Amino acid sequence: MGTEGMDEGSNMKVILKHYVSGSAQETDMHLTAATIKLKAPPDSNAVVVKNLFISCDPDMIFKMTGHKREHFDPYTLGSPITGYGVAKVLDSAHPDFATDDLVWGITGWEEYSLISDTKNLFKIQHTDVPLSYYAGILGMPGLTAYVGVYELCVPKKGDYVFISAACGAIGLLMGQFAKFHGCHVVGSVGGPDKVELLKKKFGYDEAFNYKQEPDYDATLKRYCPEGIDVCYDNVGGKMLDAVLLNLRPHARIMICGMSSQYHLEHPDGVRNLPWMVMKDAQMQGYLAVNYYHLYPKYLELILPLIKESKVVYVEDIADGLETAPKALVGVFSGRNIGKQVVAVNCL
Amino acid sequence: MGTEGMDEGSNMKVILKHYVSGSAQETDMHLTAATIKLKAPPDSNAVVVKNLFISCDPDMIFKMTGHKREHFDPYTLGSPITGYGVAKVLDSAHPDFATDDLVWGITGWEEYSLISDTKNLFKIQHTDVPLSYYAGILGMPGLTAYVGVYELCVPKKGDYVFISAACGAIGLLMGQFAKFHGCHVVGSVGGPDKVELLKKKFGYDEAFNYKQEPDYDATLKRYCPEGIDVCYDNVGGKMLDAVLLNLRPHARIMICGMSSQYHLEHPDGVRNLPWMVMKDAQMQGYLAVNYYHLYPKYLELILPLIKESKVVYVEDIADGLETAPKALVGVFSGRNIGKQVVAVNCL
Repeated sequence: MGTEGMDEGSNMKVILKHYVSGSAQETDMHLTAATIKLKAPPDSNAVVVKNLFISCDPDMIFKMTGHKREHFDPYTLGSPITGYGVAKVLDSAHPDFATDDLVWGITGWEEYSLISDTKNLFKIQHTDVPLSYYAGILGMPGLTAYVGVYELCVPKKGDYVFISAACGAIGLLMGQFAKFHGCHVVGSVGGPDKVELLKKKFGYDEAFNYKQEPDYDATLKRYCPEGIDVCYDNVGGKMLDAVLLNLRPHARIMICGMSSQYHLEHPDGVRNLPWMVMKDAQMQGYLAVNYYHLYPKYLELILPLIKESKVVYVEDIADGLETAPKALVGVFSGRNIGKQVVAVNCL
Repeated sequence: MGTEGMDEGSNMKVILKHYVSGSAQETDMHLTAATIKLKAPPDSNAVVVKNLFISCDPDMIFKMTGHKREHFDPYTLGSPITGYGVAKVLDSAHPDFATDDLVWGITGWEEYSLISDTKNLFKIQHTDVPLSYYAGILGMPGLTAYVGVYELCVPKKGDYVFISAACGAIGLLMGQFAKFHGCHVVGSVGGPDKVELLKKKFGYDEAFNYKQEPDYDATLKRYCPEGIDVCYDNVGGKMLDAVLLNLRPHARIMICGMSSQYHLEHPDGVRNLPWMVMKDAQMQGYLAVNYYHLYPKYLELILPLIKESKVVYVEDIADGLETAPKALVGVFSGRNIGKQVVAVNCL
């Protein structure tokens, strides 16, 4: 809108109207017009950015419920929703950022943001890839997949690897990474179209639609008859419980997320932990935010793979901030195929 | 009874009458008289032993429920109960065992046993310690404690370590082992006398009686205000759920047993696994049977500690096979203090 260079600009925002319980609806959010000062206050260490892309992530429901949890303070009602995004710096009072820098990290669901807490903001060094990738494969979901498969739990050749929410932004990368290690990879997804996509496009050996499987234990026995060596679990709850019944000796379970649990005030009980004892099994949870120091190492791996088309990456890009509530609700219900981002402004 | 040297002897046995549901009672078992051939069948690879001590262990309830589970096939009704014990070889058709060898391992709840499966039978090399110790500190519970604290999850100096079922055969060793590593050690037990014993005799820094704590989360926050670095969990269920709410970053949970869950057909649901993600936490299950190769290394550590009285070990020795059902039921309800064994025969 050509606001750059002006002292103040109009600023459309997406606001959470009220805290939600259970599932979220588009109508739980609304768009509101405001204005924003486009200069960073001197001595503030803050930056003012123009948001280019914002990311819709399953764990955002945590902050919409109003329950205070570690790493996930609830959103402030009346303020814009926050999350990962890609942006251009318009003005900076921070020594590490300069006008016209491209950045990714935590920003606001609005056209322009004043970002005071820059510790989760990273300068983009490589611009010969689509900038929206920094909301996905080159951002938090990519780092999560990398840390799981290349750092914390490296699978061995021939391992049976099971990945839940396999068509999500993290899962579709994890499956490919596990194939690079020579594993037999099985994924669970929420729809027949995603099953086809996993097998035909993302190189999964097998995939199933969990919505059509009445007994996850029987399903896993069908696809992993000798059991699971490594599980990258993104959903938790009942699927994790079934995984525990199908572990091979010394199995490893990485808990990368618990998307089936985020909206619940009281998460489902997982009953089959005694099988961890029987199987000498390991379980590990992790959050990508604690592994940002590995990001440069990840870029070294992934940038050549992207440029040589050796990794498949699919985005679902919604156009315009006004589409963001619908896009986010779609992610919560698994409607998107590939990484859901929203294009907010042109570069 | 001077049966040695005879071809056949009278043999009292403890039999499970019927599979139990919920808790076990003394009346679920009965004693019966039989006879036994005291010669191992030639070419059988079997041994005939005179049982000296038998061990009462919490996980035996698994085999009494009749549910078939990994590593825990149910007992055969009409045959004697089996479990860990200490015995003397009377006759052997196995090249690794000879008459008068002392052994520990899986034997029967009877005066004499014909043991066909000798893979869980180990020759006792050191007899300058009480033989009953091979049912406890020098047997499976000791190895379990060692593998947890010295091999799989070595705590660091200053770590806050929490141990459940801390006055059990495994827990009372784990606490001392953790103290050897310079940790601050907190234990949960089922009675005020055990709280005193842990603090005064076993070197625990703090201990509490879980039966008097209505809110385990609040209790753990009181005893570990900055959270738990390492947990050795022997009970599972609700206590594990509270532990998950009190993890420090990068916490480690060793699941050594789940004594609160063994009697349940459907184990309790553990709801707080999402905290594993928030805290970058690890959980590992293990069974001592998979770590017998470490037994010689363990003996090197523990034998000098026993001889120099640097480790405290307490036994609760019931006298006579006829006391075994009561002793076992006592272990299930936490009545014993220290390792519960039953003296069957004199050497």
